[in-house]
Amino acid sequence: MKTFFGSPGTVSGLLLRIVQCCFAAASIGTMASASIGTASAFRFSNYTAYCYLVASMGLQVLWSTGLACLDAYALRMKRDLQNPLLVSLFVVGDWVTATLSLGAASSSAGVTVLYARDLDFCRQQPHLPCSRFQISIILAFVTWFFVAASSLVMFLLVASV
Amino acid sequence: MKTFFGSPGTVSGLLLRIVQCCFAAASIGTMASASIGTASAFRFSNYTAYCYLVASMGLQVLWSTGLACLDAYALRMKRDLQNPLLVSLFVVGDWVTATLSLGAASSSAGVTVLYARDLDFCRQQPHLPCSRFQISIILAFVTWFFVAASSLVMFLLVASV
Repeated sequence: MKTFFGSPGTVSGLLLRIVQCCFAAASIGTMASASIGTASAFRFSNYTAYCYLVASMGLQVLWSTGLACLDAYALRMKRDLQNPLLVSLFVVGDWVTATLSLGAASSSAGVTVLYARDLDFCRQQPHLPCSRFQISIILAFVTWFFVAASSLVMFLLVASV
Repeated sequence: MKTFFGSPGTVSGLLLRIVQCCFAAASIGTMASASIGTASAFRFSNYTAYCYLVASMGLQVLWSTGLACLDAYALRMKRDLQNPLLVSLFVVGDWVTATLSLGAASSSAGVTVLYARDLDFCRQQPHLPCSRFQISIILAFVTWFFVAASSLVMFLLVASV
């Protein structure tokens, strides 16, 4: 099995997982902080798309943390994680989480664009934390970008067997 | 180069492209028909997410029609389309259109769920053609599914070289 940038059990792989985890956690944090001190009607929990974003990013944090721990263990114990069965499992997990992340980020972006641009609701209702929602969505898109990179590497590894 | 179900220049490949084209065209048609006989405020062109869906499905129709014509030509002339450069071009095009389709379908779904569920706007405003929007989005998701299948086949073809 070849070794690419971001392969499991390598330093670059560990770094990629940590970056995914950080951006996903930052996205959840920003979305949650938008609810602090705002009226209950303007909280993210009232919007299905934003709840889906938080759930999807939560799943991403769990998945990336798990794989980061596995990478750290493999590096410390000098174990090889590149066996076909394990990489096949990683490729399925990465593709599922990447699809969910893109879907969640896009649906939230659809709602935010509707409020900020189509209905001009963000200007009319200054209490709505639109900018926080936007930052959270941008962070989710960045997370998706890094997960897509991981998925591609995993797919190349499986295909190169 | 191996031959998989849906490979370029095969009958299954041609069928897959025709199916993609039909579903994408049906999605645009349903969205456009939702604007007929409704007040201008309720037309899809007022919503960025729905405009993006129509644009993305339009691009999909062009891409799938082009590749369907190429498949039909290859089948008729008994030409082999499976050279690495051509398949690399197909894989990039398929991945870009698949990502755009998923993004467009998800963002439109976000807006529709907001109106139908979170705000209960579809029941309060019976003039809003919510059911047409929903059908169009479902057709877009089906299109994405078939484009994702094509992308996967193309990727396997490139990786198997």
